[in-house]
Amino acid sequence: MLEISEIFNAAAVLKDVARKTAIIPAPKLRPGTDIYLKTENLQLTGSFKLRGAYYKISQLSDEEKARGVIACSAGNHAQGVALGATHNGIKSLICLPAGAPISKIEATKGYGAEVCLVPGVYDDAYARAIELQKEHGYSFVHPFDDPKVIAGQGTIGLEILEQMPDVEAVIVPIGGGGLISGVAFAIKTLRPDVMVYGVQSSGAPSMAASLKEGKLCHLNDVSTIADGIAVKEPGVNTFDMCNKYVDEVVTVTDDEIAAAILALIEQQKLVAEGAGAVAVAAAMFGKLPIEGKKTVCLVSGGNIDVNTLSRVITRGLSKSGRNYTFIVDLPDKPGQLSGVCNAVGQKGGNIISVTHERINGSSAINGCTIRLELETRDKEHIAEIRTALTEAGYNVLN
Amino acid sequence: MLEISEIFNAAAVLKDVARKTAIIPAPKLRPGTDIYLKTENLQLTGSFKLRGAYYKISQLSDEEKARGVIACSAGNHAQGVALGATHNGIKSLICLPAGAPISKIEATKGYGAEVCLVPGVYDDAYARAIELQKEHGYSFVHPFDDPKVIAGQGTIGLEILEQMPDVEAVIVPIGGGGLISGVAFAIKTLRPDVMVYGVQSSGAPSMAASLKEGKLCHLNDVSTIADGIAVKEPGVNTFDMCNKYVDEVVTVTDDEIAAAILALIEQQKLVAEGAGAVAVAAAMFGKLPIEGKKTVCLVSGGNIDVNTLSRVITRGLSKSGRNYTFIVDLPDKPGQLSGVCNAVGQKGGNIISVTHERINGSSAINGCTIRLELETRDKEHIAEIRTALTEAGYNVLN
Repeated sequence: MLEISEIFNAAAVLKDVARKTAIIPAPKLRPGTDIYLKTENLQLTGSFKLRGAYYKISQLSDEEKARGVIACSAGNHAQGVALGATHNGIKSLICLPAGAPISKIEATKGYGAEVCLVPGVYDDAYARAIELQKEHGYSFVHPFDDPKVIAGQGTIGLEILEQMPDVEAVIVPIGGGGLISGVAFAIKTLRPDVMVYGVQSSGAPSMAASLKEGKLCHLNDVSTIADGIAVKEPGVNTFDMCNKYVDEVVTVTDDEIAAAILALIEQQKLVAEGAGAVAVAAAMFGKLPIEGKKTVCLVSGGNIDVNTLSRVITRGLSKSGRNYTFIVDLPDKPGQLSGVCNAVGQKGGNIISVTHERINGSSAINGCTIRLELETRDKEHIAEIRTALTEAGYNVLN
Repeated sequence: MLEISEIFNAAAVLKDVARKTAIIPAPKLRPGTDIYLKTENLQLTGSFKLRGAYYKISQLSDEEKARGVIACSAGNHAQGVALGATHNGIKSLICLPAGAPISKIEATKGYGAEVCLVPGVYDDAYARAIELQKEHGYSFVHPFDDPKVIAGQGTIGLEILEQMPDVEAVIVPIGGGGLISGVAFAIKTLRPDVMVYGVQSSGAPSMAASLKEGKLCHLNDVSTIADGIAVKEPGVNTFDMCNKYVDEVVTVTDDEIAAAILALIEQQKLVAEGAGAVAVAAAMFGKLPIEGKKTVCLVSGGNIDVNTLSRVITRGLSKSGRNYTFIVDLPDKPGQLSGVCNAVGQKGGNIISVTHERINGSSAINGCTIRLELETRDKEHIAEIRTALTEAGYNVLN
């Protein structure tokens, strides 16, 4: 059973290691709310995971330390364990599925871990880690269901209360539940009047389902852009603690998460990964009763793959009318493409790409189709360009 | 002539308005350096400009305040003036060129300014602002060449010395020179041992050229992705102050700026605009003698257009081998596209887009060309896929 003194102890241990990340106002995320961001995406290693992993490792016995630690993760936990072990002068071995992104493998190595690439998926890497642990007597650092790990994450709760004593509500992402267990325990012990809400991805709602059923649920499939919280089953300890200390758990969709990532970039100049943006998504889309309440959204991490980020931005641009692809049907004779481009250019549309196809089922036998991808200002601007094309006699197909 | 007391006065005025933005370590930007970031991109309005504009407006006489202020800007200065005026309870009018992005117009209005859209370019908007100023007796808030504005920006210098007393070098972006004049004056007055370096875009090196020539230079054309520092001529005051207080001014290219923006996103989880990233670019690409010195790079702003950000990311991904477009020539018979996709898929390449063209000068009369755009892990991965395609008998054209 976790004691509040253990969280204060973790804070003392982490004092010179973890950054005390800033709380930044986010006044424009949703009208009528008073939202602030606890920026753990600006934490060393790019996520809060360092806190729990470091504290866990620091509390091992000398004998355990001498044998080293092992963990299984393709993400933020791996980097937290690697850095925690290296700082404590001990050996770490991280098992990763062989297909993990090079960038994550390199980052983990960069913090001093030995990396073991296991053919297959996460479950295979996990099985191999357990084998290696038994064989060599390493200590296994669980990503969430360990009281020391939970105590480390709980230091964020202490920091929020210290940095913003008049806070009224805190919104926290949930994957396995380690982060929210620590934060909710610290806050509800010290300040039971502060509301603590949890958020999961609707593509991986294992804790939400478990709390609803009143028992641990196992999901067979999870699918979400918030890969950091795509967990099939909560922990035994974290389930109990969420039951006791968390006021409400809600879910958000991938589209809502993507919109939150884009809003954080545009309005707050902050990069969040999918898991890091779910609390903001819940606040933005009115999933929780926070109107008029001083609310801290925990932005848990920023380690988003840049290819993914690029897709999120592209999708967000298209949703808000800042790019659009026109498909135009036109007679196959000289001067047509020029005419279309002219109509677009006069309205200030910026052409990014053009595809001109002569053979197409939907066009007349002597016709062709062009696809024009444009940068536009907004939906009105798109409508203006559409009108200009139609008035110039072109047949816009979409 | 500016006095250090005026900068302390500006700091007192700004105390409850401007955020004291955090200084964050950036240990991986360049090996062998000790770099920190002063994060003015996290400032209210997304840039440092608020400081100078607010202080200038606060120092107007009651009579001047009653008449209101005017400024000309399509960017950060506009938002700074609007917010500064609204907070001080006075009227502001901002002249913008009519083609300015809707998002900037809306942001400026959102801070309470009246917006006057002037047909033409920046110079036309400027001319109109001067006319309106004369007509109505508004006070003109210059974007950089005003001692009060410079004093406001100088508060960043005070904060750096307070937040990091052992700082050894500071790197600052230069457009018109207002920011660096204030920062360099504050730092050199209080701590002459700290080096102060300036950075311009090589596409708009007006201050660098002026310092070299020993007199104000006017550039006829400026072109850079760092639109916030695309200034054709420095100010009279800022030129004098840079001459006196700045140790060295260097330039960086658009490609270097883009790489710095991407590094800030990936390593620091921070969004910077082009102008905001030039100091980091200079540090990353070894333009300044900062090895082993505790160095603060000023990240001056984060208001980057998301379409531009998307392009910077795409370009960065392609430069680092994380996407690639293969062009493959193949006989026009059934099963060929499937064979190519199979070879790519087995190597873990993720297909983003396919263009299949039958008519193409470079292919045989019965052949066709396909373009495959892929997400890849790195340059080695691209080479692996190329080998797989070649070994499967396909002719890769690029």
